[in-house]
Amino acid sequence: MAVAWSGKASSMEALSLSLSPPVILTQDELKKIAAYKAVEFVKSGMVLGLGTGSTAKHAVDRIGELLRQGKLNNIIGIPTSKKTQEQAISLGIPLSDLDSHPTIDLAIDGADEVDPHLNLVKGRGGSLLREKMVEGACKKFVCIVDESKLVKYLGGSGFALPVEVVPFCWKFTADKLKNLFRDSGCVVKLRNDCKGQPFVTDNGNYIVELYLKKEIGGLQVASDAILRIAGVVEHGMFLDMATTVIVAGELGITINKKQ
Amino acid sequence: MAVAWSGKASSMEALSLSLSPPVILTQDELKKIAAYKAVEFVKSGMVLGLGTGSTAKHAVDRIGELLRQGKLNNIIGIPTSKKTQEQAISLGIPLSDLDSHPTIDLAIDGADEVDPHLNLVKGRGGSLLREKMVEGACKKFVCIVDESKLVKYLGGSGFALPVEVVPFCWKFTADKLKNLFRDSGCVVKLRNDCKGQPFVTDNGNYIVELYLKKEIGGLQVASDAILRIAGVVEHGMFLDMATTVIVAGELGITINKKQ
Repeated sequence: MAVAWSGKASSMEALSLSLSPPVILTQDELKKIAAYKAVEFVKSGMVLGLGTGSTAKHAVDRIGELLRQGKLNNIIGIPTSKKTQEQAISLGIPLSDLDSHPTIDLAIDGADEVDPHLNLVKGRGGSLLREKMVEGACKKFVCIVDESKLVKYLGGSGFALPVEVVPFCWKFTADKLKNLFRDSGCVVKLRNDCKGQPFVTDNGNYIVELYLKKEIGGLQVASDAILRIAGVVEHGMFLDMATTVIVAGELGITINKKQ
Repeated sequence: MAVAWSGKASSMEALSLSLSPPVILTQDELKKIAAYKAVEFVKSGMVLGLGTGSTAKHAVDRIGELLRQGKLNNIIGIPTSKKTQEQAISLGIPLSDLDSHPTIDLAIDGADEVDPHLNLVKGRGGSLLREKMVEGACKKFVCIVDESKLVKYLGGSGFALPVEVVPFCWKFTADKLKNLFRDSGCVVKLRNDCKGQPFVTDNGNYIVELYLKKEIGGLQVASDAILRIAGVVEHGMFLDMATTVIVAGELGITINKKQ
């Protein structure tokens, strides 16, 4: 379900898809459309942040395809996860890291939620820390989503806000997080993997999921309060980081730029 | 060298040592005196945070001794490091953790620096994160130091302010820290172990040492700025956490209480 945005914090450009006669697109097709649109921003010679997740995967595939076709060259990719690193290697995309390339021209990545101010929730793929490091080092960060990711406020999708915590006494840290957002009806859960064991991030940490019933208020204040809890490594709110958000919906693509 | 404090933020109680004729005490003897004084605050039945480092070690030894002598009983210790855990086990101190005991009656631990407002720098022992988790859960936190640890401002000893960071692209994170405190002439170094390899914390992370030539200004602002850097896990400034600081000097013990 798409949420009507106020659009106050961003300029919006609507592009119609060339679909005649109209067809019903799957969510994955919408993700692919957004991803391909984002890759149009990529120029030869760029250092690129390569995102993680089902939407970003399409963008990485597309970059690999354009390299193979010779339509792009001299690209250096900075992957945001071990998974994306493997994907990029399989596609023959030359890779480096932040230590060698501390400034990135452009990053393309998905998000779990996007609010009308282009603030994001990320981390469902479990790579929020590396994504935040890479996307914080970008001149331009293009976020790509299907319209189901649009929310009126962060936490509004009913999905979780993930927080990466050290495994040591994680329950204690989770309780502190729960208490912090008590007024928002916060429920906390440890993320498990498919075997029912605690999900372990690329950095060897756990993910505590925060489910929120109400808005948490000032996001920067909330961010600092989370980060002040000893035991917290990083959280999935990406505030004021996306410079462009490309949204693919059934009626077309919208490109929202940070003003 | 002891630094003259203004003493504005704390009430000070001076106790003379019963040393007649006067003797020159070693730094380790001063640490032991402070530690033994702190253990006088321990009562049977308490849940105790057990610190890490050369000063805290004396306190843990003393608690073990009093348990053995039957002068204390029904103590539960919450160790702040694997090292302290091993020490406590060897002394027969019953142990638990923060998940089982989220509220701690009293913690006793050393510090690398203490400023006149009883703000601390900790982490030379490498356990700053677990120490901060445990000592943040205490009703009372007694810090024990010899007088060489007193500084006019945090960073003033010339020793480092340690910051725990994820190993992933640590140089990138270290550069961000350096830039953050550029105005204070910050120099950053990765902590190495005795074999010249990166020192690894109990949480599997690295320690970046910040050497500061000048005061960093507002400490809470600096703390938040450090924590906002993706890649930072925790830092060694313990602001507004110590309720009592016991200082052992050649002229006696002073007990400084947070007002």
